[in-house]
Amino acid sequence: MKALARPNIHDLAVYKPGKPIKEVQRELGLEEVVKLASNENPLGPSLLALKALEAAVPDVYLYPDGSSYRLKQTLSEYYGGLDPDQILFANGSNELVQQLSLAFLNPGDEVVAPRPSFPRYEPLARMMNARAVEVDLTDFRLDLEALGRAVTERTKLVYICNPNNPTGTIVTKSEVDAFLGGLPADCLAVFDEAYFEYVDDPAYPDGLEYLRNGNRQVVVLRTFSKCFGLAGLRIGYALADPEIIAFLERVREPFNVNALAQAAAEAALRDGAHKQRVVELNRREKQFLYREFDRLGIEYIPSEANFILFNARRDEQEVFQAMLRQGVIIRGGFGYRTWLRVTVGTREQNEKFIHTLQSVLTEG
Amino acid sequence: MKALARPNIHDLAVYKPGKPIKEVQRELGLEEVVKLASNENPLGPSLLALKALEAAVPDVYLYPDGSSYRLKQTLSEYYGGLDPDQILFANGSNELVQQLSLAFLNPGDEVVAPRPSFPRYEPLARMMNARAVEVDLTDFRLDLEALGRAVTERTKLVYICNPNNPTGTIVTKSEVDAFLGGLPADCLAVFDEAYFEYVDDPAYPDGLEYLRNGNRQVVVLRTFSKCFGLAGLRIGYALADPEIIAFLERVREPFNVNALAQAAAEAALRDGAHKQRVVELNRREKQFLYREFDRLGIEYIPSEANFILFNARRDEQEVFQAMLRQGVIIRGGFGYRTWLRVTVGTREQNEKFIHTLQSVLTEG
Repeated sequence: MKALARPNIHDLAVYKPGKPIKEVQRELGLEEVVKLASNENPLGPSLLALKALEAAVPDVYLYPDGSSYRLKQTLSEYYGGLDPDQILFANGSNELVQQLSLAFLNPGDEVVAPRPSFPRYEPLARMMNARAVEVDLTDFRLDLEALGRAVTERTKLVYICNPNNPTGTIVTKSEVDAFLGGLPADCLAVFDEAYFEYVDDPAYPDGLEYLRNGNRQVVVLRTFSKCFGLAGLRIGYALADPEIIAFLERVREPFNVNALAQAAAEAALRDGAHKQRVVELNRREKQFLYREFDRLGIEYIPSEANFILFNARRDEQEVFQAMLRQGVIIRGGFGYRTWLRVTVGTREQNEKFIHTLQSVLTEG
Repeated sequence: MKALARPNIHDLAVYKPGKPIKEVQRELGLEEVVKLASNENPLGPSLLALKALEAAVPDVYLYPDGSSYRLKQTLSEYYGGLDPDQILFANGSNELVQQLSLAFLNPGDEVVAPRPSFPRYEPLARMMNARAVEVDLTDFRLDLEALGRAVTERTKLVYICNPNNPTGTIVTKSEVDAFLGGLPADCLAVFDEAYFEYVDDPAYPDGLEYLRNGNRQVVVLRTFSKCFGLAGLRIGYALADPEIIAFLERVREPFNVNALAQAAAEAALRDGAHKQRVVELNRREKQFLYREFDRLGIEYIPSEANFILFNARRDEQEVFQAMLRQGVIIRGGFGYRTWLRVTVGTREQNEKFIHTLQSVLTEG
């Protein structure tokens, strides 16, 4: 039946997610497993979000509000009075990358994306018969000049993952200013800011500022899966010019955001104190991990996000498997032979990670 | 910026969902609103499902299991040992229609669909630059012979909504047998069986039986949004040949089904008693509504689902608005000038509906 499917989807790989804890427990017969593989927030969501979620449960037999009316109002206020028509919610920011492809990519169009980065830009371009042009990082950072040079008259979307996953590095405001200055008017710059809330570096550009200043080419993607601790509920959003949002609306599934995600996200936005705790824990624990890496003589990339890329100086898949067997799930497969990514956890999780890494690396 | 978007999405309409209760309350300043517009289950989900949902809440900061491993096992058992590779879960069965388009529709391909029916087949074909060929119902029933005649060598998908929404009518096993017998080998027959659990008519064909008998052209769509009362959580599934499922997997977003939906759905499948209660209430209340329609001299279409199409003999939009002003949300806009659809509710809701309808129709 091969002729049935579209030619360009035949060799699209099925995404390999970080292993779920239960799957690892099942496969390896382990009781305790620490998952530091998917950049989740170890403190979980705000208690206000959990309460709002519980309060919404009795209505779960009703369809969600397809327009996310209340959440849109709340997010608009959260950003100090953003136009609700500049907002679109989705089933995780994953789905926004899909919607951008569906709305904008004709066959033969091009998408420019950094490599390694969030691994959905490329397959979702190919899904629409567009060409994905991947531009290697330079010294673990996005090379905006090289990305700019890769843009042609066929380029519809350029992805800028900032901070970049899996490296944790950022591009600066002055770099982005220069990049946008040279971008053709009919090409969108998509800032994937999934880790926005964690950034400390004052040189970091807030993508929303470009929108506020009237730049109609900028699309900002953010999520409740990371700092807000709601990855299991699936909710992210795009901020963009109302005309761009209106195109995305045309390819959006009518009830793409579930009711409990809407309720929890709305409450999460109102709990600034929890967000503060999450960011501070992450900041403190990054320092702990840096010190431990230094102590062990392990090279790492200082990170503006909630994960750290480090050099195990051994085949990354071997290290991944050895860690897994000891009940610590981390992440490799980024195309850097000996580098792996660890999510910043609680002190206890980080200690277990360091302890296990040490034993794995001295074993070999 | 119009040139940015793909030409074929420009005039895709944004789906107009049934009005959420809160929106109606807000707009009209009404305290009590009865929503019988979206074919939700007024008894809500199984208590086991709610308990499982609650138990999954503490892990909501973790990504869901992208493969829905446990739920797939449970659904496989629920159907007496289906191959898990024949199952794919999605963010509501809406998303499955999108995935079918993404996996199978090349520009110029054709989709055959009944009209009126579930309103997503046509726009999601056009989204992929395919041609949607809509075939009018005959006497409020799908005309399988006419649908068969509309199939050409370019047809990739034929949708058979059974029972059909919004008419509640079914096509029979012998009609479907004949239809499938004449279908070209490279065309998929997609049975949208969202209302499967409600059907009483013994002539109704269970789409899964065709799969069990080795028919590799049949795709069955079912959902937890109706009889299982989980519309707010967004979860549906496709049953099909493993090769078809593998193509859909290539265009599936990695974490498309949220964690709470997976947990609740798994438990819901184990609560046969609740399903029974839901189906029995629906059966009893349909009879109540039939009697009341008869009493008022209102024509209606006997339904195998949890809704009834009836003839108000007045402009359907006028009736819709008049009902809305009195706090009863029903549904029109199906292209039948004077017919509207009402969801079967609890006795109290149905009485309020009948009472309001009577006052609206005698007013005019």
